Amino acid sequence: MEKHIVLLPGDGIGPEVTKAAKNVLQAIADRYHHSFTFESHDIGGAAIDHHETPLPEDTVKAAKKADAIFLGAVGGPKWDQLPGHMRPEKGLLGIRKQLGLFANLRPVKAFQQLLHASPLKQEVVAASDLLIVRELTGGLYFGEPRERRNNGKTVVDTLAYERSEIERIVDQAFQSAQVRRKHVTSVDKANVLESSRLWREVVEEKKHQYPDVTVEHMLVDAAAMKLVTNPAYFDVIVTENMFGDILSDEASVLTGSLGMLPSASLNERGVGLYEPVHGSAPDIAGQDKANPLASILSVAMMLKHSFGMEEEAEQLEAAVQEVLDEGYHTADIDLVGGTVVSGSELARRVVDQI
Amino acid sequence: MEKHIVLLPGDGIGPEVTKAAKNVLQAIADRYHHSFTFESHDIGGAAIDHHETPLPEDTVKAAKKADAIFLGAVGGPKWDQLPGHMRPEKGLLGIRKQLGLFANLRPVKAFQQLLHASPLKQEVVAASDLLIVRELTGGLYFGEPRERRNNGKTVVDTLAYERSEIERIVDQAFQSAQVRRKHVTSVDKANVLESSRLWREVVEEKKHQYPDVTVEHMLVDAAAMKLVTNPAYFDVIVTENMFGDILSDEASVLTGSLGMLPSASLNERGVGLYEPVHGSAPDIAGQDKANPLASILSVAMMLKHSFGMEEEAEQLEAAVQEVLDEGYHTADIDLVGGTVVSGSELARRVVDQI
Ligand SMILES: CC(C)[C@H](C(=O)O)[C@@H](O)C(=O)O
Ligand SMILES: CC(C)[C@H](C(=O)O)[C@@H](O)C(=O)O
Repeated sequence: MEKHIVLLPGDGIGPEVTKAAKNVLQAIADRYHHSFTFESHDIGGAAIDHHETPLPEDTVKAAKKADAIFLGAVGGPKWDQLPGHMRPEKGLLGIRKQLGLFANLRPVKAFQQLLHASPLKQEVVAASDLLIVRELTGGLYFGEPRERRNNGKTVVDTLAYERSEIERIVDQAFQSAQVRRKHVTSVDKANVLESSRLWREVVEEKKHQYPDVTVEHMLVDAAAMKLVTNPAYFDVIVTENMFGDILSDEASVLTGSLGMLPSASLNERGVGLYEPVHGSAPDIAGQDKANPLASILSVAMMLKHSFGMEEEAEQLEAAVQEVLDEGYHTADIDLVGGTVVSGSELARRVVDQI
Repeated sequence: MEKHIVLLPGDGIGPEVTKAAKNVLQAIADRYHHSFTFESHDIGGAAIDHHETPLPEDTVKAAKKADAIFLGAVGGPKWDQLPGHMRPEKGLLGIRKQLGLFANLRPVKAFQQLLHASPLKQEVVAASDLLIVRELTGGLYFGEPRERRNNGKTVVDTLAYERSEIERIVDQAFQSAQVRRKHVTSVDKANVLESSRLWREVVEEKKHQYPDVTVEHMLVDAAAMKLVTNPAYFDVIVTENMFGDILSDEASVLTGSLGMLPSASLNERGVGLYEPVHGSAPDIAGQDKANPLASILSVAMMLKHSFGMEEEAEQLEAAVQEVLDEGYHTADIDLVGGTVVSGSELARRVVDQI
């Protein structure tokens, strides 16, 4: 197959992990006789530096034509004092909206080798394998009005949803559950929010289309508790944008492998933006220390979700597991009896497995 | 001193733990020569059953005249299918608003005897001692409009704040920090929400009035992570209503002692509503199994915050610690080498210590 991939390296360690992602994609293409082409564009702080905007028109144009997008990371202290519209994160929010990337998928899985680094007790976290399906282009993030009033004496933000926006993310969650353990936990705050009550109604309607999947409703405060006390309870969690932001970050630290977690953000055509969950880590940027595995696992999600390449994706995930099994890792990770290598060497070892 | 206390036993185990709270208050009055008078009123499901509303006028009237209010718990499956305005929680939301209980204080402290029940590793959680100061009468909980539009095709909720509402909760947080370890973490989502940007401005202004307190800003997603990875990092966390709901429940399970956690909700006159953090636990209601210690510690908060009785509060906290040290506990708690007793007996043992 021929696929065109837009790379958005971004800031900090973004360029390093993007290089790892590209090398791995190239290796997959070689082994499976695909043809992947690449082009790179600026986003975030890098784009502010070069184009005085966190999201240049060129970047958006290229992204809209791509089969998939890989993003490294955005942000850093260098741009922290700039006014709101010139902040690196605006690039990320902008591209989500402009490409209609409504479905953010964040799997959290325990790697047995890394469990000892978890803040949770081994027996609490060991069996964890969950997927958070977060609505990504609605809710408090984009609702209008969002403004100060009365000379700055009052302020409002708006949590707004169209019914159709809720329907498509709920469909996504049910479909994700169908290829997993077939259980959906829909998280809301229906005892307080009108939007949550509509959310619940949509879930109750939709469930009849997925009779093979069981579904339950859980309040967001209860979900925040249960993620800590019993993360293995969950299969698929679906929730609105802000709740998803909070819960997915909470979930990301449970298994002790934040440096390993991938993500995908999909639109209705299946085009996706893939990025590691970790940030731009400016403190270690440029030192070839960054862990490339979250990016490589994000590439596996790209192969699966945007290219329909199931076999290639599984092969890549197996390669990562193999390298971990051999004890190789970057310095962010503490692996008993393991060998610390540079980020580029770790990526090369994954490539060698392919 | 003479004090008049309104008791709102509510539902499930609410009446049992309220009785424990009352007995302890009576014991404090006897020992320190105070005169406490009591009156009981319905709220929540009990009020729905007796008055067809979760918050009868009588209850509000009495609460407004009280020096302090004790609430047991509200809710249960019996009332789960009723329409929104007839849900037990509406009683709780209503009384918060009508009494102007804007400041919810939720301390989370590790009890060494109970740490083994924590989902976190002992070394991660042992030193935890934090206070969440949650804004309780603004934000998404009460903002207007909150409604469906276009024949139910769209829905909005509104996150609204007055600057003065932010100022008073931020003042409360700084003042709480002054009698603790003098550090405030203000939690917001300033990279997305306009209300968070105003929140940050207010904190930046206010901090000059409290030069003895250090303050930092943290994004809500980062705070949700750090609560799990390093809860001992925090002293006072201050945040808006919905973030506070999520983070305080997340925090409540960290130390393995959810059955032990008290809370206070204060208004501008220092009148407060005190309640255990745990719910109404309908499954064990009426069996004298409920752990009264969260309620008893809520009484200690009442003595301190509404009555200015520091010594009495400390005496009561010491009594709870003493009973735990002797190994007595209810069945919800697992204490190695301890003795399981009924809820009423555990409360009696605390009373005996006073
Ligand atoms: C950078 C920020 C705006 C963003 C969000 O809140 O969505 C980030 O936290 C994320 O989860 O991708
Ligand atoms: C019952 C519910 C409305 C309430 C809230 O969300 O405030 C509860 O979760 C709490 O934290 O006291």
